[in-house]
Amino acid sequence: MPIESRYPKSFASDNHAGVHPDVLDAMTAANHGDAPAYGDDRWTATFERRVKEVFGDAAEGFAVLNGAGANMVGLALMLGRYDAIICPDTAHIATHEAGAAERLLGVKLITVPTEDGKLRPGDITSRLGGLGNHHESQPSVVSVSQVTELGTCYSPAELAALAQAAHDAGMRLHVDGARLANAAAHLSCGLRTITTDVGVDVFSFGGTKNGALAAEAVVVLDGSLVTGVPFLRRQSLQLASKMRFISAQLSALLADDLWRRNAAHANDMAARLAAGVADVPGVRIAYPVESNAVFVALPPAVAATLKERYLFHYWDEDACVVRWMTAFDTTPEQVDHLVDDLRKVST
Amino acid sequence: MPIESRYPKSFASDNHAGVHPDVLDAMTAANHGDAPAYGDDRWTATFERRVKEVFGDAAEGFAVLNGAGANMVGLALMLGRYDAIICPDTAHIATHEAGAAERLLGVKLITVPTEDGKLRPGDITSRLGGLGNHHESQPSVVSVSQVTELGTCYSPAELAALAQAAHDAGMRLHVDGARLANAAAHLSCGLRTITTDVGVDVFSFGGTKNGALAAEAVVVLDGSLVTGVPFLRRQSLQLASKMRFISAQLSALLADDLWRRNAAHANDMAARLAAGVADVPGVRIAYPVESNAVFVALPPAVAATLKERYLFHYWDEDACVVRWMTAFDTTPEQVDHLVDDLRKVST
Amino acid sequence: MPIESRYPKSFASDNHAGVHPDVLDAMTAANHGDAPAYGDDRWTATFERRVKEVFGDAAEGFAVLNGAGANMVGLALMLGRYDAIICPDTAHIATHEAGAAERLLGVKLITVPTEDGKLRPGDITSRLGGLGNHHESQPSVVSVSQVTELGTCYSPAELAALAQAAHDAGMRLHVDGARLANAAAHLSCGLRTITTDVGVDVFSFGGTKNGALAAEAVVVLDGSLVTGVPFLRRQSLQLASKMRFISAQLSALLADDLWRRNAAHANDMAARLAAGVADVPGVRIAYPVESNAVFVALPPAVAATLKERYLFHYWDEDACVVRWMTAFDTTPEQVDHLVDDLRKVST
Amino acid sequence: MPIESRYPKSFASDNHAGVHPDVLDAMTAANHGDAPAYGDDRWTATFERRVKEVFGDAAEGFAVLNGAGANMVGLALMLGRYDAIICPDTAHIATHEAGAAERLLGVKLITVPTEDGKLRPGDITSRLGGLGNHHESQPSVVSVSQVTELGTCYSPAELAALAQAAHDAGMRLHVDGARLANAAAHLSCGLRTITTDVGVDVFSFGGTKNGALAAEAVVVLDGSLVTGVPFLRRQSLQLASKMRFISAQLSALLADDLWRRNAAHANDMAARLAAGVADVPGVRIAYPVESNAVFVALPPAVAATLKERYLFHYWDEDACVVRWMTAFDTTPEQVDHLVDDLRKVST
Repeated sequence: MPIESRYPKSFASDNHAGVHPDVLDAMTAANHGDAPAYGDDRWTATFERRVKEVFGDAAEGFAVLNGAGANMVGLALMLGRYDAIICPDTAHIATHEAGAAERLLGVKLITVPTEDGKLRPGDITSRLGGLGNHHESQPSVVSVSQVTELGTCYSPAELAALAQAAHDAGMRLHVDGARLANAAAHLSCGLRTITTDVGVDVFSFGGTKNGALAAEAVVVLDGSLVTGVPFLRRQSLQLASKMRFISAQLSALLADDLWRRNAAHANDMAARLAAGVADVPGVRIAYPVESNAVFVALPPAVAATLKERYLFHYWDEDACVVRWMTAFDTTPEQVDHLVDDLRKVST
Repeated sequence: MPIESRYPKSFASDNHAGVHPDVLDAMTAANHGDAPAYGDDRWTATFERRVKEVFGDAAEGFAVLNGAGANMVGLALMLGRYDAIICPDTAHIATHEAGAAERLLGVKLITVPTEDGKLRPGDITSRLGGLGNHHESQPSVVSVSQVTELGTCYSPAELAALAQAAHDAGMRLHVDGARLANAAAHLSCGLRTITTDVGVDVFSFGGTKNGALAAEAVVVLDGSLVTGVPFLRRQSLQLASKMRFISAQLSALLADDLWRRNAAHANDMAARLAAGVADVPGVRIAYPVESNAVFVALPPAVAATLKERYLFHYWDEDACVVRWMTAFDTTPEQVDHLVDDLRKVST
Repeated sequence: MPIESRYPKSFASDNHAGVHPDVLDAMTAANHGDAPAYGDDRWTATFERRVKEVFGDAAEGFAVLNGAGANMVGLALMLGRYDAIICPDTAHIATHEAGAAERLLGVKLITVPTEDGKLRPGDITSRLGGLGNHHESQPSVVSVSQVTELGTCYSPAELAALAQAAHDAGMRLHVDGARLANAAAHLSCGLRTITTDVGVDVFSFGGTKNGALAAEAVVVLDGSLVTGVPFLRRQSLQLASKMRFISAQLSALLADDLWRRNAAHANDMAARLAAGVADVPGVRIAYPVESNAVFVALPPAVAATLKERYLFHYWDEDACVVRWMTAFDTTPEQVDHLVDDLRKVST
Repeated sequence: MPIESRYPKSFASDNHAGVHPDVLDAMTAANHGDAPAYGDDRWTATFERRVKEVFGDAAEGFAVLNGAGANMVGLALMLGRYDAIICPDTAHIATHEAGAAERLLGVKLITVPTEDGKLRPGDITSRLGGLGNHHESQPSVVSVSQVTELGTCYSPAELAALAQAAHDAGMRLHVDGARLANAAAHLSCGLRTITTDVGVDVFSFGGTKNGALAAEAVVVLDGSLVTGVPFLRRQSLQLASKMRFISAQLSALLADDLWRRNAAHANDMAARLAAGVADVPGVRIAYPVESNAVFVALPPAVAATLKERYLFHYWDEDACVVRWMTAFDTTPEQVDHLVDDLRKVST
């Protein structure tokens, strides 16, 4: 029994979950004899083929080690020395990557306040006043997260409008897809419907939060950018030497829609959780539940009591908004347990 | 049978080997329930304790994802904005990390030609002429690899002399220990004999080439540098979210001297290989075989014929020097097979 | 007659003015025989002595080439690899230095919206939530401009409170003093009253807008930071080889309070301008006039007509706020001319 | 009499000289009324036109503040994130710019040992082995200095061969022309003969060592690179606000071949100096005297005695090679004085 087990289940992060058995099996199966290092192996070839199957022939996939790495490699492809990124002020690249964007990319982040974590086309066009002015950083990339950091999803039409606005301004669209699977599951669409088909230029596809051990992909749809990836991946410390074990994880998720089953289950558990607590007096669902995250405003005393029994994070301590995350392995019982406890505490 | 199997065994890199079964077992065992992310878990606590057991109480270990990452995080700790590193011109940080040192650290590498991949104290003192001159980068770190990129080892006394020379000049000593285990095995000494005990300030301990899947450690012996590691690890894209699986690998290697058994076996296979070919006419062992690498000068036709049957790299194409690496799982039969083939081809 | 002369006087920037005759005379006087390069000359020694006379014995002055350079050198002294700067969102370093802070320093700017360009202590303390969290950039410097980019001034007490708040949080206080002279003139105090005496750690003192040709100073009050300046100045491309000509400019301004006479005159002209237009219907002084800048909201048609006759910038095109700057050589007649024209256009 | 005057004339650097009277006059003449800042003025327009007259219509000139700045801006135009520069190991960018190349550009310098400071085409082709290898920095720029740091000059044919070799490899050729004028004077050719006409892509043209106060130009011949200059110049801290005074200096030098008269005179003085000492026993001219620099090997005691009376630098202390620089204002009498003293000391 793990030392962490005084908590029946962590609702703090989908990173608290372990590895899906199929993914671990795929890694174990890859541990057979020798294989060339750095991606010149058959597991990586399979992964690359699967990326094309899922995202279309134009898609080139590159396996990397973590989500911040996927973002930095993908963004570096598109950024010159005096460029800026327009992104929501909640963007992971702006808030939780320890300044990697500024330090590793040297880029200015133009952060936009939003109601729901989602950028709108007008947020782009209204921030282009400095284009051509040599005193100002030049916006060249729009970066959004799908699912957003507030658990909300862009519809395909919304993404297409962002791509259009970006392209109209001579910019490119990047999507941080750490939870792209959850978005596709929520939208009941294919992964390419919210990437290739809407004009995204470069995106990441997150494996780790979807049941992998440590595996993300940078996917490049703009062919003119592909050449640089191997160099940038290496330089950005995101190249695994025993690459087959990273590729095998991603292939396992992309095979037979395991990614969708994992994501859909996590989403369902979040929906169940939200439904369970929505009518409790004093409780308010803070953002639309469109993925595996539930943001809830709670009475401070209630939050504090629950915090003793469950692992989760305060999102906004002043407003007493907490974030509950579900994962591929969250069970209905675990959700109901939390709901029951909340109800008890609230009475 | 893997697609790569037309080669009975790769001698190209210790990264071509898979994962040691004990390491994979440890990862599988860690896949149990939830665990806090980013290192706040019990597997990581175990790893941190093992580091202290092996390297002494002053040692603080931080698990990272790959060797270049371990180098960049470790070096970043010690470098200001106008600093330089003195290192052999064969150093991995200088030759094979895609310019990460210059790009991510912004540091100048003062590269020193060597006979055998090993830096001498005089190589340090002779390169300090610019100290205090505001037109020049200021040397602040000496970085050496143990095992070197030429397969040679520093004795404890040699390392102590480097540390002394560095410290006398107000500099610090960093060791790239991607194959530190092989060095300790070759020297028949403990890991701390060539790190803590000789005055190293920061070093990396390589797991991946020693039988791990993807796991390295940054170990800090200078306590004044510890505070920065978590931030630099995160920013340098070297922080795993599901850290327990990285820590479990390192703990497995550090437990019961698995690291030593793996390294000693690989070293033995290299010695066997070198012994087997040393007296073949036209063959010359290029550098002392002090680890799991054998550098051999071969007649070009011999090299070309072998290259059709075995995976290995030319180290110096002009001089026709090739590099053969052995691994924890190389068998005597595989070595003898290569030796036999070489002998046949050479007659 | 210069080609620009269809405008009787530029109100666009204090950078549109030329060089004060005394400054040019000082440069000409320095053009006598040989002098060591890079600051090892007697004019630089004089400048360094004057800095100590004006700012106190602890002050070490370093001449640089422009304001952005002075900011980057001064800030670089205080910033580690994962640090952040808290500054107003109007800060020059955030808006008009082409991303130099992010690119050259690799730093995250935490930008704070303000009413009047002035940061308050609460703006610091409310942004320290991420301290110690390895996912977030660590605030280590507070940077404010005196005069602010909106033409307002901090009182000595306000600066002292910022310094206190910064130091209480283990941070340092930087002041962008491109118009420090104008602030001291407005406040009728000495330059050290708003720097040394209130706890500033590093600041710039602007010469160029005060009548120099191209000369700014980085002044370091925290002695522990001094060693790094020569290296950072050189690396940041801010070291003049024929330094005597830069130092001579700064010495000329610091001698006999020329800086104050120039600044006071410019401030007076701004006050005259503000007074002249304040009661015109449709005209609104947008920010307190506390230096040589007048921000005025105008009816769009009025602004457009004036723009045909005068050089000035729109500050906020949507709100039709324009910025008028005066300089050491602006004459009352030129001011009155603008006022008269505005009155005529407004009727 | 300046404090430095115990030395009749400095032979330490052409930066020890003052400003040519015509240049100072041009600056004084520019101090007339207002002018738009940052280059939008008529003096800058004149400078830009002169650049085209001298270097051809394709040439676009950008005034900057110092030589290191000109190098960094020019090189930044041509460098991606994982690129390397091939340059002689004596290159100013490699030795005397405080690591700006590594820190500001993030670039790896592949430094080539040379006999005489001059790179040969074979030095390029022999260093391209890593092209396409994602573990290695990718050479994309060749950078040479004309005049070299050893005072030697490339012939037009030699430069053309370097350009050819660079272009054949898909690279660009950059020339650090801090003393380009001295080279053209030595070669008795036009400035465009050694830049535009031989296939240089980007170069700097040095004003400061040629009689300016502080003014250099970045000249771009590859039209595809022009767009980025204003942004990079601003971000690199090389944009003067009162630009007219920088442009006026460069225009003065480019008008009526003042650059050539200044350079030719300095070269003549160096030739006179070399001729005067060449036959003194124990004295050896270390490198061909092809500009305004004389490198001489001297008996240590002779060097030491002269050092008490003259300002100059040891270039190689071990070999007792000293460097004597002449300038536009060095007089024959001053040269003869040094020659006489050397002869006296040597007897």
